Amino acid sequence: MSLPAEFALIARHFRPLAGEGALDLADDAAVIDLPAGRRLVIAADAMVEGVHYLPDDPPETIGRKLLRVNLSDLAAMGAAPLGYLMTTVLQRGTADDWLAGFARGLAEDQRDFGLAVLGGDTAATPGPTCLSLTILGTVAPDAVLRRVGARAGDDVWVSGTIGDGALGLRVLRGELPADSGGHLARRYRLPEPRLALGQAIAGIASAAMDVSDGLVQDLGHLCRAAGCGAEVEARAVPVSPAAGALLGADATLLPVVLTGGDDYELLFTAPPGSASALVTAAARAGVSITRIGRIVAGSPVVAVRGADGAALSLASGGWSHF
Amino acid sequence: MSLPAEFALIARHFRPLAGEGALDLADDAAVIDLPAGRRLVIAADAMVEGVHYLPDDPPETIGRKLLRVNLSDLAAMGAAPLGYLMTTVLQRGTADDWLAGFARGLAEDQRDFGLAVLGGDTAATPGPTCLSLTILGTVAPDAVLRRVGARAGDDVWVSGTIGDGALGLRVLRGELPADSGGHLARRYRLPEPRLALGQAIAGIASAAMDVSDGLVQDLGHLCRAAGCGAEVEARAVPVSPAAGALLGADATLLPVVLTGGDDYELLFTAPPGSASALVTAAARAGVSITRIGRIVAGSPVVAVRGADGAALSLASGGWSHF
Repeated sequence: MSLPAEFALIARHFRPLAGEGALDLADDAAVIDLPAGRRLVIAADAMVEGVHYLPDDPPETIGRKLLRVNLSDLAAMGAAPLGYLMTTVLQRGTADDWLAGFARGLAEDQRDFGLAVLGGDTAATPGPTCLSLTILGTVAPDAVLRRVGARAGDDVWVSGTIGDGALGLRVLRGELPADSGGHLARRYRLPEPRLALGQAIAGIASAAMDVSDGLVQDLGHLCRAAGCGAEVEARAVPVSPAAGALLGADATLLPVVLTGGDDYELLFTAPPGSASALVTAAARAGVSITRIGRIVAGSPVVAVRGADGAALSLASGGWSHF
Repeated sequence: MSLPAEFALIARHFRPLAGEGALDLADDAAVIDLPAGRRLVIAADAMVEGVHYLPDDPPETIGRKLLRVNLSDLAAMGAAPLGYLMTTVLQRGTADDWLAGFARGLAEDQRDFGLAVLGGDTAATPGPTCLSLTILGTVAPDAVLRRVGARAGDDVWVSGTIGDGALGLRVLRGELPADSGGHLARRYRLPEPRLALGQAIAGIASAAMDVSDGLVQDLGHLCRAAGCGAEVEARAVPVSPAAGALLGADATLLPVVLTGGDDYELLFTAPPGSASALVTAAARAGVSITRIGRIVAGSPVVAVRGADGAALSLASGGWSHF
């Protein structure tokens, strides 16, 4: 009796990615120890072909995006990566080459982010490929970043630039012209989890989360957790040169930038007196941060003011699956 | 701006299931502490509609099956449950009633098995519903059950009865007559993770795993881990009265019992001198166990002998997705 193809697939593509505690992916579960004095931080995100990534995205970037959107959740908690488990439910007929590329991308990011696979499961589906990843990290007990904690008067900050991912998706769909450097498409396919920044601002920021469903919607979540509102200046929201060029040509793209999602930047708040400490921490982490507004007393409404000072009317707060 | 439907769905169905450390499912990740002196045991299994469960299975049992197949992996490691994360990628148009039933079943099993949800993700797909669960448990450092460790001369044991799940699937598909008590269908839909048994035999068994892909195939994995073979007496394999009645009427169903999978019983080995300690441990755990064969020196081949002493020829070693 030969072994079924499922086990050959796991041995060929995933076993080389296995880390300490994974027991070579040959047992029923992984067994790991946390570093002494650290708490476990754990989150899970799924990605579906045609929903969270494009069917013709390179397989190398799909595995990396899956890992990175999960690492972004660790970043938002101030945590450091420990490992991950992954379930790959593959559309029937998925080519071995596709899997090889998928695993090659994961191997590259494992090296860059310092973690390895601990376990998972592989199955087939008649529907689109459905990937799920559970990320494990650790944090010192007194350094957990939380989404709750913003107070009226706090500044609102974001890391990096906003809107690249949402614009990049539209570029890849052929709805917008591509920038010459391919920056926007790359940002859609390969978000940059702000792990060093999350750890650097823990203890300074009053609240933090990552921006995945759109800046305005996600700031709304942060406001609801705090029982406060927020005011954002649209012109203060940092955009990349490529996004700025598109916005310059068509100002009606501003809502895409503000609500489109797929940013995976950190959104956080802090009292104005902490601004210089934040800037120092961000510089240490090698990431730009920008003050985009402030937390205000009142109901959890996010008001975005345009360049003329008038409130923008945003048709949709952000991405939803239902 | 109102909240998207996705968040209402999570608040309505999943937040009531959240446990300590889940931060009310309102943060980017869960933060938990392991009980002092315990190691973390973690595994993930996916289930796809039409592949791992039937589209018309009651939603109450689907969530419970998803949880139980994962708990079975903890059982196989001798671990005790701590919590779980779950990603639900739902076929578009999934009814709210279906989700209510799915969550109701999970709530029931959470009480029975003493754990709660820590986090996860919800998305939609045009394909069949795709569920993934990551189970967390803990184990004392000196009580980890491993798949590796069997030695020539060890007895091979299984818990409970074998073949009910595979026969139950065929009953539910209308391929076999139902037993009057509905035992076989129930066993397919609601496997019984042998958590107490796993913990009871840790330190006695030389190797252990759970039977999910079929007894013969899974024993093959255990043999490969050990670099040994195994001999099994088909007539020693324990079957339920309902399975026995079907086998009595049609002996050609024996390969279904031996290779069909969906058993979620524990398969384990121990030196013959440990038999009475195993029986005592199993009695304490309230689970029957049966000696079905032995580990032999040589290549990792599983030989099954029929009632006449001749080797059975099994066309397929067990379930594979590819």
